[in-house]
This record gives sequence, C-alpha cells and structure tokens, in this order.
Amino acid sequence: MKVKVLQNILSANDQLAAKNQELLSQNKVLAVNIMSSPGAGKTSLILETIKKLRDRVRIAVIEADIASTIDADRIIKEGVPAVQINTGGQCHIDANMISNALESVSLAKTDLLLIENVGNLVCPAEFKIGAQKNVMLLSIPEGDDKPYKYPLMFTTVEAVIISKMDYLPLSDFNLSAFYRAVKGLNPKAKLFQVSCKTGEGIPDWVAWLESQLKGS
Amino acid sequence: MKVKVLQNILSANDQLAAKNQELLSQNKVLAVNIMSSPGAGKTSLILETIKKLRDRVRIAVIEADIASTIDADRIIKEGVPAVQINTGGQCHIDANMISNALESVSLAKTDLLLIENVGNLVCPAEFKIGAQKNVMLLSIPEGDDKPYKYPLMFTTVEAVIISKMDYLPLSDFNLSAFYRAVKGLNPKAKLFQVSCKTGEGIPDWVAWLESQLKGS
Repeated sequence: MKVKVLQNILSANDQLAAKNQELLSQNKVLAVNIMSSPGAGKTSLILETIKKLRDRVRIAVIEADIASTIDADRIIKEGVPAVQINTGGQCHIDANMISNALESVSLAKTDLLLIENVGNLVCPAEFKIGAQKNVMLLSIPEGDDKPYKYPLMFTTVEAVIISKMDYLPLSDFNLSAFYRAVKGLNPKAKLFQVSCKTGEGIPDWVAWLESQLKGS
Repeated sequence: MKVKVLQNILSANDQLAAKNQELLSQNKVLAVNIMSSPGAGKTSLILETIKKLRDRVRIAVIEADIASTIDADRIIKEGVPAVQINTGGQCHIDANMISNALESVSLAKTDLLLIENVGNLVCPAEFKIGAQKNVMLLSIPEGDDKPYKYPLMFTTVEAVIISKMDYLPLSDFNLSAFYRAVKGLNPKAKLFQVSCKTGEGIPDWVAWLESQLKGS
C-alpha cells in the first residue's frame, strides 16, 4: 500500500494570492510588490517611476500603511489612480487586503500596478499577495549589514534597489560588502543603485520594469 | 445578583513581562527597551551610551535580531557583557525570550540593562517584555511623517530619540512638524536629537538615562 502524500496544500493566504495573480495576469496587469523598512523611499521611488513611465504605461498604485492616507494622497496629486489600504495595526499586506483593493482598481485600464507594502523588513516577506514581482529597497543610511539580519526579505525578492545613494558620501556603507552579502543569499537578485533626489539610477530601474512589462 | 466582571486578566505574555519586571526591580536593574526601524542606529546609540556611562554604571546588553550575532559581537568587543537573542523569524522580542535571556545576565552585577529590540516600527510596540522604560529612535533619513504611519510605537514610548542628526542638512526632515506630530500622539514624550557620528545630543540622552537610574 502506498502512502498518500499531500503536496502543495497552500495556506488560505497563498490560495488567495494565487487567485489575485490569476486575475492580474488575465487582465495583463504586471503587479510589483515593493517592500522596505519605514522611510527607505518606497513612495519616492513610485513617484519617480510614474514620472518616467506615465507617457507610455498605464499605472495604478496601491498604498498600504498601518494608518493615514499620506502616501495615496501624494500619488493622486500626480493624477495617477491610487487606493490606500490601512492595515489597522497589521505589519504587512496579506492577499485578502489586495483582493479587496483590486475591486477599486480599473484592471482593464492598467498595465503596471505598483503596490507599496507596509514599512517592515520582516513580515511582508512572509506573506504572498499575488504580485508577479517582489522587490525591496534598502537605503544607504540603514547600513550594509541588513542582509545578515533580515535574510528572508533578501532571498524573497527579484530585485534589490539601493536607495538614497546621495547619502553615500556621508556614510560608511560598503557597497561591495553589501553586494557580496546579497549575492550570497540570492545569487539571481538584480541590484540597482538609485537616488530619487539626484535621479541617479532611475533610468536603469525603469528600464528593468519595462522589460518585465514586455515579458508579462 | 451582581455580574462578575473579570478585569486585568493579563495575557500570557503580559504576565511573563510583569514577572520579568519584578525580577529586574528586585535586583535594582533598570531595563530599557530600545526600538526603531532597521538601521536607525540602535546599536550605535548603545555603544555611545556605554562609552559615556561605563565608568559609573554597570551595563549589560541584550541584543535581538532575526538572525546573526553582529550586534552582540560589537558590544562584547567593548568589554560589556551581551547576550544575543535570535528570534528565528519573529519580528519582535516577547517576554519569554527576555525571561530566557535574563538567565544569562548577572543581575546582581548590573545597574542598567539595554535591550535592543528587532528593527521594526510595528510589532515591538505591541509586546511588553518587562522593561521599565520603553524608548524609540527615529532617524532623520526615515522622514518626519512616521508618527502618522506608525502611531502605536510613538504612543508606547517615554522617549523619542531623533538619530542621525548629521544627515539633517541633506534632508527635508521638518523638525518642528515632527515634534508637533509626536506631541499630538504622546504629549509626555521626551525628545532628544542625537548624532552618534558628531556626538551631538548624546550627553542629554545619557543624563536622562542617569536620572531614570536614580529614580529606579
């Protein structure tokens, strides 16, 4: 008699995440889950991405925070549709929140959906939300030792965006040590060096996003 | 017949936190729970505090991270006893972890126990660990809007330490807006402006800590 092995029994969250992803793919929407510590510059990167891509790509944004609508307000000011999720204390987005938020997004009119997760280097890495791409920002002032302290986040993502490069001259951040640490955890990770203040590296990041759009 | 109202039924974590606090107080140890985002400078502040106070105060440190012993190693190099907690994925310290860690601390030989929580502005605020004082750092590069986005953390603490003040000239951080936001949530919060790089504000912070030691 053979023992029955039940594989791929997804958790309720993962099942819902898979449904979200199916809905997005059916509508030819590329969703990007953007994660980082608080204040690493997620919203600023989204605003710069909008500036560069808005003429040729239809963008929508989902913003998530414990509280407040500060970030969605900043996006809407740019004339881009944005939905704000308030998690009410929860330290990450889950698939159910995205499922609800997607009801307020015009998927037929969207090519690229940028999802800003709650500022947190831990829990967002543990919860799939249905985005096709997961990326993270690590800002220069946070220091180059973060891959050792928050390894799951660095292994979960396809791209690591080093932000606030304009702070580098003031900092003891060791870029080559950081690259080594990231590549040790996640050899395939794509790395970008950007500054939303000077514009450094934004074209590379945007070009990568566009290449992902073409692939989707 | 009167309805019996059960009040103050503490959760298992809160019960254990109360026990930790009792043990600390019996041993005349002041424990300070230090919280912030990843990379806001908790370890650097602890190292500066050690430098200023080590001649007259017996200090011990508990370091917590998801993974690695980088921070405890830095403390031990200074000749100060340090215990590293690896939470193995958990995004905050809980009372049970501190209860276990306290077994490795010589309480009879300690006046001040500095506890560095996991880098996270959300969950550490929700879990009592038994420290008599809870404080947080917010670094200049994180931005002045964080009290609106992470209100619980800012209401939980007795002191808010604005760190990396040396980055202020490069930043659009509005100090008076930040003070207003913090005071709106937590009128009694004590605020400090520090830079571990220039030494700015460290004496004020250390003087406050010493006044708390005398009160304990």
